Amino acid sequence: MGENGTEKFMIRTDLAVEAKESFEEDNVEIRGVIIDEKYKEDSDIKITRVVIETKNGAKAMGKPMGTYITLEAPNMVVPDEDYHREISKELAEQLKKIIPIEKEIAVLVVGLGNREVTPDSLGPNVVENLLITRHVVKEYGKEAYGKNKVNIISGIIPGVMAQTGMETLEIIKGVVEETKPDYVIAIDALAARSTKRLNRTIQITDTGINPGSGVGNHRNGLNKESLNIPVIAIGIPTVVDAATIVNDTMENLIDAMEQTKELKAIGGTLKTFDSNEKYQLIREIISPHLNGMFVTPKDIDETIKLLGYTISEGLNIALS
Amino acid sequence: MGENGTEKFMIRTDLAVEAKESFEEDNVEIRGVIIDEKYKEDSDIKITRVVIETKNGAKAMGKPMGTYITLEAPNMVVPDEDYHREISKELAEQLKKIIPIEKEIAVLVVGLGNREVTPDSLGPNVVENLLITRHVVKEYGKEAYGKNKVNIISGIIPGVMAQTGMETLEIIKGVVEETKPDYVIAIDALAARSTKRLNRTIQITDTGINPGSGVGNHRNGLNKESLNIPVIAIGIPTVVDAATIVNDTMENLIDAMEQTKELKAIGGTLKTFDSNEKYQLIREIISPHLNGMFVTPKDIDETIKLLGYTISEGLNIALS
Amino acid sequence: MGENGTEKFMIRTDLAVEAKESFEEDNVEIRGVIIDEKYKEDSDIKITRVVIETKNGAKAMGKPMGTYITLEAPNMVVPDEDYHREISKELAEQLKKIIPIEKEIAVLVVGLGNREVTPDSLGPNVVENLLITRHVVKEYGKEAYGKNKVNIISGIIPGVMAQTGMETLEIIKGVVEETKPDYVIAIDALAARSTKRLNRTIQITDTGINPGSGVGNHRNGLNKESLNIPVIAIGIPTVVDAATIVNDTMENLIDAMEQTKELKAIGGTLKTFDSNEKYQLIREIISPHLNGMFVTPKDIDETIKLLGYTISEGLNIALS
Amino acid sequence: MGENGTEKFMIRTDLAVEAKESFEEDNVEIRGVIIDEKYKEDSDIKITRVVIETKNGAKAMGKPMGTYITLEAPNMVVPDEDYHREISKELAEQLKKIIPIEKEIAVLVVGLGNREVTPDSLGPNVVENLLITRHVVKEYGKEAYGKNKVNIISGIIPGVMAQTGMETLEIIKGVVEETKPDYVIAIDALAARSTKRLNRTIQITDTGINPGSGVGNHRNGLNKESLNIPVIAIGIPTVVDAATIVNDTMENLIDAMEQTKELKAIGGTLKTFDSNEKYQLIREIISPHLNGMFVTPKDIDETIKLLGYTISEGLNIALS
Repeated sequence: MGENGTEKFMIRTDLAVEAKESFEEDNVEIRGVIIDEKYKEDSDIKITRVVIETKNGAKAMGKPMGTYITLEAPNMVVPDEDYHREISKELAEQLKKIIPIEKEIAVLVVGLGNREVTPDSLGPNVVENLLITRHVVKEYGKEAYGKNKVNIISGIIPGVMAQTGMETLEIIKGVVEETKPDYVIAIDALAARSTKRLNRTIQITDTGINPGSGVGNHRNGLNKESLNIPVIAIGIPTVVDAATIVNDTMENLIDAMEQTKELKAIGGTLKTFDSNEKYQLIREIISPHLNGMFVTPKDIDETIKLLGYTISEGLNIALS
Repeated sequence: MGENGTEKFMIRTDLAVEAKESFEEDNVEIRGVIIDEKYKEDSDIKITRVVIETKNGAKAMGKPMGTYITLEAPNMVVPDEDYHREISKELAEQLKKIIPIEKEIAVLVVGLGNREVTPDSLGPNVVENLLITRHVVKEYGKEAYGKNKVNIISGIIPGVMAQTGMETLEIIKGVVEETKPDYVIAIDALAARSTKRLNRTIQITDTGINPGSGVGNHRNGLNKESLNIPVIAIGIPTVVDAATIVNDTMENLIDAMEQTKELKAIGGTLKTFDSNEKYQLIREIISPHLNGMFVTPKDIDETIKLLGYTISEGLNIALS
Repeated sequence: MGENGTEKFMIRTDLAVEAKESFEEDNVEIRGVIIDEKYKEDSDIKITRVVIETKNGAKAMGKPMGTYITLEAPNMVVPDEDYHREISKELAEQLKKIIPIEKEIAVLVVGLGNREVTPDSLGPNVVENLLITRHVVKEYGKEAYGKNKVNIISGIIPGVMAQTGMETLEIIKGVVEETKPDYVIAIDALAARSTKRLNRTIQITDTGINPGSGVGNHRNGLNKESLNIPVIAIGIPTVVDAATIVNDTMENLIDAMEQTKELKAIGGTLKTFDSNEKYQLIREIISPHLNGMFVTPKDIDETIKLLGYTISEGLNIALS
Repeated sequence: MGENGTEKFMIRTDLAVEAKESFEEDNVEIRGVIIDEKYKEDSDIKITRVVIETKNGAKAMGKPMGTYITLEAPNMVVPDEDYHREISKELAEQLKKIIPIEKEIAVLVVGLGNREVTPDSLGPNVVENLLITRHVVKEYGKEAYGKNKVNIISGIIPGVMAQTGMETLEIIKGVVEETKPDYVIAIDALAARSTKRLNRTIQITDTGINPGSGVGNHRNGLNKESLNIPVIAIGIPTVVDAATIVNDTMENLIDAMEQTKELKAIGGTLKTFDSNEKYQLIREIISPHLNGMFVTPKDIDETIKLLGYTISEGLNIALS
């Protein structure tokens, strides 16, 4: 979650679809970025595909080159009878487009995050519900499953640095070298820029996990560059940085001021600030106590349980 | 955590010491409220005693009449070798002032909050570490402990309404009527008004737990009125309401504007708003998505573990 | 789990179906006990209905008068795609025979056992997955569910005496008196007499939970006598008492001796012992270290997760 | 936990001190094995040092060559005020004899076992309470701790094969190769041969973790051979194999028969069996349902919490 010095005013978001929107707000067109939107009426899922094709596109978006697919489903956390199987199925379908599962493959699923902090426990939760097959196939052969094609699935919950003293990359790199999977799928709780996408958006990307702005230094990420095999990342935004919440409010404040007679002059002044200037102003006035703070809903426990199940079922469908 | 209609602009805080400060900011004196501060240098603990003596004082403070003691220890979450035994001891000493433990007493300790949401799991955590004696004394007599005075300690983790479908009061009232303790001690994670008190302040009060502003309707609270026995509440603020964070920033913004030449005029205008007007303005511009959101630090898991231990040891010292 | 003095050699089992078998072994007929067996081929579930109709039957069986239904499904813990929905449905069907759900009813589901000890955490696990409605109906009416009939479901995980210092009955009695449900459904992990029934048998009974032999003193049980409303108990055997395992082996030992030439004489001698004498012999030679010990499979974590889900879905189907 | 074909009647125990005793019972002297016992009166701890010096000794004991230290403290699970600091200190002292901590060292602590199965969760529990320093030293230098010697501590909870699909060795080998510690300390819940040592014995060994009889194939173990750095293992027996319990009873049965007039002849016959013959007899008569079953006390949750704390504090003292 570090920030890259040269892009210092960039709003922090893990979602490509939000990075895109922030440009749209400023009416800036981004070269090298292709966007494609689709809405599936029967399942009420909006699918957005963002492809960053060039280095300039990557720089502008603050994200590495690659494909980012988001599934937005407004009712994702509304409990229903079959735990949103329609979303699991759509996730499986999108995954299969990224991972060509014609022949048998070996996949290591990595559950990132801290199982002891509720909104950060999505990754561990998914791995706990996953159908693990590697040990069975190694001991008894795929006949154990009565099928003639069985993917080799392993899983790990590496913990966070405060618990292990190690970078996640150090752990995963070692495990990948020993067990030689064909793919890594990393599951993570993300930070969104806005509360409105919280817990209702799944992002799937073939670029892996890339802390910070993602341009330049990839060494600490979980990606093809660091692990030498393709890394697919699946994430759901479950928190918003506290600083971002404050920024959102500023934007609303300025709009409100425009419409309040006695405050109109002020709103006008602030309006002349561009987004970098506004963000800098906000950074200055935000209490230092807000660093390392996140915002999350009070019922996040139920949400994580439901979302974790939806993702693990999506993986089980795609991989079995 | 409801809000009382007639006091609608009152900033939400569970801490009497913060309610007091918000008046001090506006230079308002509060009748019927006595405040007494003390600093213990050897243990680096600041002890503030707020006594609300009259109904007017209660109305002004938005809290019921009674005594509120806060222990503020800046290093409370800095790990040390003996898990801050000095704080546990101070807590025990303050508790003994409220509960006269001359003769043997029976105490039911209630761990409020949701064990599945990390910052809300303080109460369950404390009860899990508590020395429970009731069943042993009932079966074997106090001889089992080789002492001639043994307090009868029981504990319960009632869960939250989304898990049980019941008000906490319904559960505790039933248990109190069956098991007839002399006192209830309720442990809860609180909401602070400001991040600066988060995880470094313990509040002890003889008024129990009183949702909302606390004046008027006490029926849903855990207190002497509802349970017919004294209820002591011990709490540590572990979250701040997201709306409050935004408000804090506003205050800082206005101060910053004062000092920025081109924004001075604006700051001046806002400065003329009183705190209710400012809060109303903020309420209007805050995204409705912020309702039901809280702010908490990323390392809240370690914090809860440490604070839970400090409080349960304080109770063990006071009661054994 | 106490034992009744007058029946001192009775083998400990929570399953009526096993109590019945132990009589069959000794070729004893039991008056006042009606047994009815059925096998459903499509779902591979064997359903046994034991009705204890008289006091003598109760004394002989060591269980209170009432109906005991067991569902035996050999594949209950073999993971399958829909989490054994056929078993959940059969459970729902049997439940509906015991609870006449024509009109709306209010049910308190009690998750007995210790959530911190894996094989004992079945009850807590079921309540965590249950659809709780009471708080929603009380606040918004049944319209919130868009149905014109909604059962009022509440749930509680009371904990065990070592954690609370209180009898489970004290807690549940208090909660029942405050919240006035029509029925209590208590979920519990049971002790079986033999490992062969472990984790593949569900017992449903209208007699509630009755520690000890169940004849005579009912005061500490959760039953109609103590709570004044009908109590249905649902249990799955997840452990065997260590002493019972040893007894099982003795039986096998004697059989084996019969068939070993040089040991035939010994086997013959032991064979003349009746089951009480054999049990007494075993009790004498069992190490006192075995008291308070239980036997359970190494993969009990996966088992509890699966069984908990099967039961909670059964309840969700029956009650919604 | 596999068994070596050539030693097929050997009683299963992870404790060298028990392997030794089983020879003493048969009055067999073991060459190449040195035993040294000491009792510390002030702390009531018995310390036994077993050194296996030769291959023959290893074969006889069913354990690899090396040093095995056991601390036996009868009151280890009796709660006391300082969580048995005297045991933590003795553990630290013994550890320092095995790991020469003169200069700074880097240690990876591995918490083996399944966190979801209570008696198997000792290792995860210890790592969760450990003072982890590696990430802090790497980022801020040892100055962060205000000391001029800081050991580099990292920790990992790898999970069990059913959860990960991977051998523990595969995970740890990879992590060791990436992070290059000087030592591995592996914490594990052990199986004892007898309930009388359960939860009151700590074994420390410089031979690492060696599944099966330990002679011959070391490839799947966590040891110097597989990891290329010294591996210290610390274990506490928390379970007994169900088959072993039955064997213990047999021994008692034979003794009892000796003293019962009418059974004397039988006891005499069995007495002529040597321990291998007896074990084989038992294996034949034990129900196959007992495979994969373990025996553990009902209050194992409290025990694991207490023992985990005692060990993690021992490590914190030794390493800081």
